[in-house]
Amino acid sequence: MNIEDRVKSVVRDVIDFPKEGIVFKDITPIMMNANVSNEILEYLVELYSNSGITKIAGIESRGFLFGYPLAMRLGVPFILIRKKGKLPYDKISYSYDLEYGSAAIEMHTDSVDSSDKVLIHDDLLATGGSAQAAAELIRSQGGQIAGFNFIISLSFLQGDEKLKEYTENITTLATY
Amino acid sequence: MNIEDRVKSVVRDVIDFPKEGIVFKDITPIMMNANVSNEILEYLVELYSNSGITKIAGIESRGFLFGYPLAMRLGVPFILIRKKGKLPYDKISYSYDLEYGSAAIEMHTDSVDSSDKVLIHDDLLATGGSAQAAAELIRSQGGQIAGFNFIISLSFLQGDEKLKEYTENITTLATY
Repeated sequence: MNIEDRVKSVVRDVIDFPKEGIVFKDITPIMMNANVSNEILEYLVELYSNSGITKIAGIESRGFLFGYPLAMRLGVPFILIRKKGKLPYDKISYSYDLEYGSAAIEMHTDSVDSSDKVLIHDDLLATGGSAQAAAELIRSQGGQIAGFNFIISLSFLQGDEKLKEYTENITTLATY
Repeated sequence: MNIEDRVKSVVRDVIDFPKEGIVFKDITPIMMNANVSNEILEYLVELYSNSGITKIAGIESRGFLFGYPLAMRLGVPFILIRKKGKLPYDKISYSYDLEYGSAAIEMHTDSVDSSDKVLIHDDLLATGGSAQAAAELIRSQGGQIAGFNFIISLSFLQGDEKLKEYTENITTLATY
């Protein structure tokens, strides 16, 4: 089975979450399956070995799940992109619009410098708002966006359109 | 250098976070150091190999950082314990008191059954409120608490006193 089918074999549809009419892609069955988890990690290690990335940034909180193990396996630093108010040290914020209201994410200023080629990772690409915000944080510190990676993406939301201005290197393991 | 000294060599004190008078232990420099990260993971793998644990539960969000890689290495399922409102499927909640107000965490009901011996992992043991809440969630589904593990603990807060009723197997890599 290829990696896309393997991911889709365990991801679960939850109807009417977080609100009526939405079909939510629940990735937690991946974490409950150690074999699938390890296959995904090996796939990512293979994909980004010798890619020249110097750091991986994971978006809180599900972006920590594969982002950090991948960084450890590649031997590169892992940057935590967190929701506003969580990071304790010198930091920068970036706000972005949601369907209703807005959200802000933060990054420590000592996480990135102008020598860096950063891979941005999250579990899911939807509208691309948080991935774009992460890219803006990294760019503001002089870092280059080397790629975006997602476990799954919802193609009908066209989130990749927002991300193409940063890099053409956008990879997803399973697309719906 | 032993693992405790290794952890302490990178953990950073941040003064007056999240409020005046608090000295916050910032673990993000661990994630920025791939060598230390891998040494910690190898230490945990060694510690829990052949321990008989059947699952690992990690507490959102920093408990995902080492909890999931450890589960993958041990070949056991990883349970996400999340803040209220985040998990999409059938779930149970547990509320606990904070200094001001209260918090609630949730777990999918299909995560644990009565055959399970669960290791609960988080980055930090402070007062023990969230670890105890996680233990209650697991117990409510019939699971046995096989142990608690933390990267660092603040011993002056005596959080381990809250956890001893569940198991004597409480391990911390670095104690302050």
